[in-house]
Amino acid sequence: MTTSDANTPQSTENPGAHAAGRPVVAVIGDGQLARMMQTAAIELGQSIRLLAGAPDASAAQVCADVVLGDYRERADLDRAVAGADAVTFDHEHVPTEHLRALIDAGHSVQPGPDALVHAQDKLVMRRRLREIGAPVPPFAPIGSVADARAFAEAVHGAVCLKARRGGYDGHGVWFPDPGELPELVSRLLTEGVPLMAERKVDLVRELSAMCARTPSGEVACWPVVESVQRDGICVEAIAPAPGLPADLADQARALAERIAAELGVTGVLAVELFESRDANGRPRILVNELAMRPHNTGHWTQDGCATSQFEQHLRAVVDAPLGATDPTAAVTVMANTLGAAEEPAEPLAERFAAVWRRFPAARIHWYGKTHRPGRKLGHVNVTGADGSAAGIAATRRIAELAAGYIVDGVWADGHVERG
Amino acid sequence: MTTSDANTPQSTENPGAHAAGRPVVAVIGDGQLARMMQTAAIELGQSIRLLAGAPDASAAQVCADVVLGDYRERADLDRAVAGADAVTFDHEHVPTEHLRALIDAGHSVQPGPDALVHAQDKLVMRRRLREIGAPVPPFAPIGSVADARAFAEAVHGAVCLKARRGGYDGHGVWFPDPGELPELVSRLLTEGVPLMAERKVDLVRELSAMCARTPSGEVACWPVVESVQRDGICVEAIAPAPGLPADLADQARALAERIAAELGVTGVLAVELFESRDANGRPRILVNELAMRPHNTGHWTQDGCATSQFEQHLRAVVDAPLGATDPTAAVTVMANTLGAAEEPAEPLAERFAAVWRRFPAARIHWYGKTHRPGRKLGHVNVTGADGSAAGIAATRRIAELAAGYIVDGVWADGHVERG
Ligand SMILES: Nc1ncnc2c1ncn2[C@@H]1O[C@H](COP(=O)(O)OP(=O)(O)OP(=O)(O)O)[C@@H](O)[C@H]1O
Ligand SMILES: Nc1ncnc2c1ncn2[C@@H]1O[C@H](COP(=O)(O)OP(=O)(O)OP(=O)(O)O)[C@@H](O)[C@H]1O
Ligand SMILES: [Mg+2]
Ligand SMILES: [Mg+2]
Repeated sequence: MTTSDANTPQSTENPGAHAAGRPVVAVIGDGQLARMMQTAAIELGQSIRLLAGAPDASAAQVCADVVLGDYRERADLDRAVAGADAVTFDHEHVPTEHLRALIDAGHSVQPGPDALVHAQDKLVMRRRLREIGAPVPPFAPIGSVADARAFAEAVHGAVCLKARRGGYDGHGVWFPDPGELPELVSRLLTEGVPLMAERKVDLVRELSAMCARTPSGEVACWPVVESVQRDGICVEAIAPAPGLPADLADQARALAERIAAELGVTGVLAVELFESRDANGRPRILVNELAMRPHNTGHWTQDGCATSQFEQHLRAVVDAPLGATDPTAAVTVMANTLGAAEEPAEPLAERFAAVWRRFPAARIHWYGKTHRPGRKLGHVNVTGADGSAAGIAATRRIAELAAGYIVDGVWADGHVERG
Repeated sequence: MTTSDANTPQSTENPGAHAAGRPVVAVIGDGQLARMMQTAAIELGQSIRLLAGAPDASAAQVCADVVLGDYRERADLDRAVAGADAVTFDHEHVPTEHLRALIDAGHSVQPGPDALVHAQDKLVMRRRLREIGAPVPPFAPIGSVADARAFAEAVHGAVCLKARRGGYDGHGVWFPDPGELPELVSRLLTEGVPLMAERKVDLVRELSAMCARTPSGEVACWPVVESVQRDGICVEAIAPAPGLPADLADQARALAERIAAELGVTGVLAVELFESRDANGRPRILVNELAMRPHNTGHWTQDGCATSQFEQHLRAVVDAPLGATDPTAAVTVMANTLGAAEEPAEPLAERFAAVWRRFPAARIHWYGKTHRPGRKLGHVNVTGADGSAAGIAATRRIAELAAGYIVDGVWADGHVERG
């Protein structure tokens, strides 16, 4: 612990702030995923050393042992991982050459660079998935307008163009009309964005199959979840995915497990899936993309599952046995609270209070971030005991109303509170 | 955030480490209760400013904004509460005169000194409870050996002698034989221990009725729990209390609610109860003592209830609406892990691993404390879907085996793991 000097923000590197006899995990990244890892870490007595970009970042607000620095700088990484039993991430952007250097220096990096590269580059991921026989949409690297034209012709104009690296929340994904395609590709290539294209899939809905895997090879899968997307952002997750045929659910889980093993993933793996139909109209799944860390579609596990994804991730990266993944409710719905175009005048604390008064069982999770339109600021989990279609709809309604009130300060159903 | 200087441990007072638009709660005390408040605080986005006695204290290990100081010193309290929206506690030992001064200075102290005094002094508590008509054992202040002799005669020798202040985990509670009583009383009075005596109750078992109350007067009760004590320490809690007649459960909950209201308690209140029998052999309850903070018998709520006691406490002290208190499982058993006479040779991490391999659904909570015989180091929660007597017994067995393995490095049932 350190002397106070608010003008020279550097770090609170505090090796004393660790539980005796329990592992220390260096977490690279300071967002809400790292923040919620800390929630789990506290109860596990498994301490976090955080590499954060700023002292007021979401996760830095809640950790005792914080190293301020840049995850792209080898020296900062070295400071953050010193003395830690394992190194993990709340994002996939650490340069793999740094990770290889950390491993050479004797650190346990989970997941390792050979796995992580598949979450960093969508083309590398697609190629590898095709190699192991995982179902993916037709795709091609795009290095020129001619490539784009050829691919568009092959898929009859149903083109989804993607930045290979750095995309999130739909940034870096485009669905151009055939007429716009050449100009868009030309502009992006000029800007230096490495591109790929894939067939625009005729979606029934999106699913997410999540599992965790330890370095020793133990794997535990959660129930497959429906992921509701709006404008390329996950707005809701429903666990388990309503009406998913058992064989498709088994197939999705087996796929996640196989990808984890084949790619050597450790920690939590999220396999984002498209549910589509084959030529005979039968439901089928295709892999969209991979995330090798806790994932937005796994937030429901905090309140609806025996073991949360954050705890499971921390257990997995230190090669501890995994926890049970049984749901504790018939249905759990997670609704994101994305910053409104303008923050409502009603103070945040009062919006929380209004939600809790109306829905005392609603579980609000808040990331401590400042308001920005569209920004993921928090989420609400709601569990339901009734797994019928009507029960699921009722649970969704509560989650959506609660999240909506936090975002807008307005009840979407016109509800008026009686004083 | 601050510059690193490991040799001058002072504080990490970091006002930046708080979520925008959400309340800051100053927590006085650095033990496991404060630590587990931080778990809840992170998800609520409701930041904690901690007053801790040492940088490696249980709660100080996991908080970003820590003031090092002494809760008996007014100046340290002032530093800790500056700018906080509410002040609360993980123990009841802050001098009430300081709390009154904080209130005079405009701070919101929850619970306030007029309530807290009943958790600080067992005689004050007994008198007040009798005043409001709550059932308590016969009791008397003990200021002399003659007082003790007279009380012993009145209760036919069934004497329980108690230090009025500062007792915990059975320290400060004595059950002297009639012959030993005079000498014990004389010694304790000479040592300056203020004493009271009460009738030694013929216990069927011990119960705990917990609720939370807001400054606005909203109250929410949890199900009544059975508290299993060994040598004056809580070793296990079973929620809900098995076989408790509904009328007795209602009476216990109503009692907790009434005590909270009459004494002006805010935050979590635990009412420790004795289950006994009246002259006709009918079950009855008597109040043992009060705690005005999260309580060991409420730890089960972390994994078996819609809202944990730690979240509820944080919501209550900022006068936010309370959460639902419905159990999420038919039975939840909490077993404490109390430090063994000697720490086992097997490393802690491997004992955890052995427990998780055998019981993947066991929930271990660890406080980050160093080993000491009898010390509360952590606890294990286990939920069960079967609320029958056999189901409860099976759930208890798992919790006891798991906690026992962590403590002793041995399976109490002789189980041998196959490799
Ligand atoms: N081939 C496709 N066909 C149809 N829709 C697609 C396709 N690829 C992506 N999408 C849509 O765009 C969304 C975002 O795509 P993707 O997951 O690749 O982008 P991202 O920006 O990396 O998102 P994330 O926030 O999940 O990291 C998908 O969830 C889906 O709704
Ligand atoms: N009057 C009594 N009759 C019988 N047993 C009693 C009596 N008072 C206390 N006990 C036993 O001693 C235990 C400890 O008593 P008490 O709760 O007053 O002490 P404490 O040290 O303050 O404990 P805590 O750790 O709960 O603060 C009780 O849980 C009960 O088992
Ligand atoms: Mg995606
Ligand atoms: Mg007691």
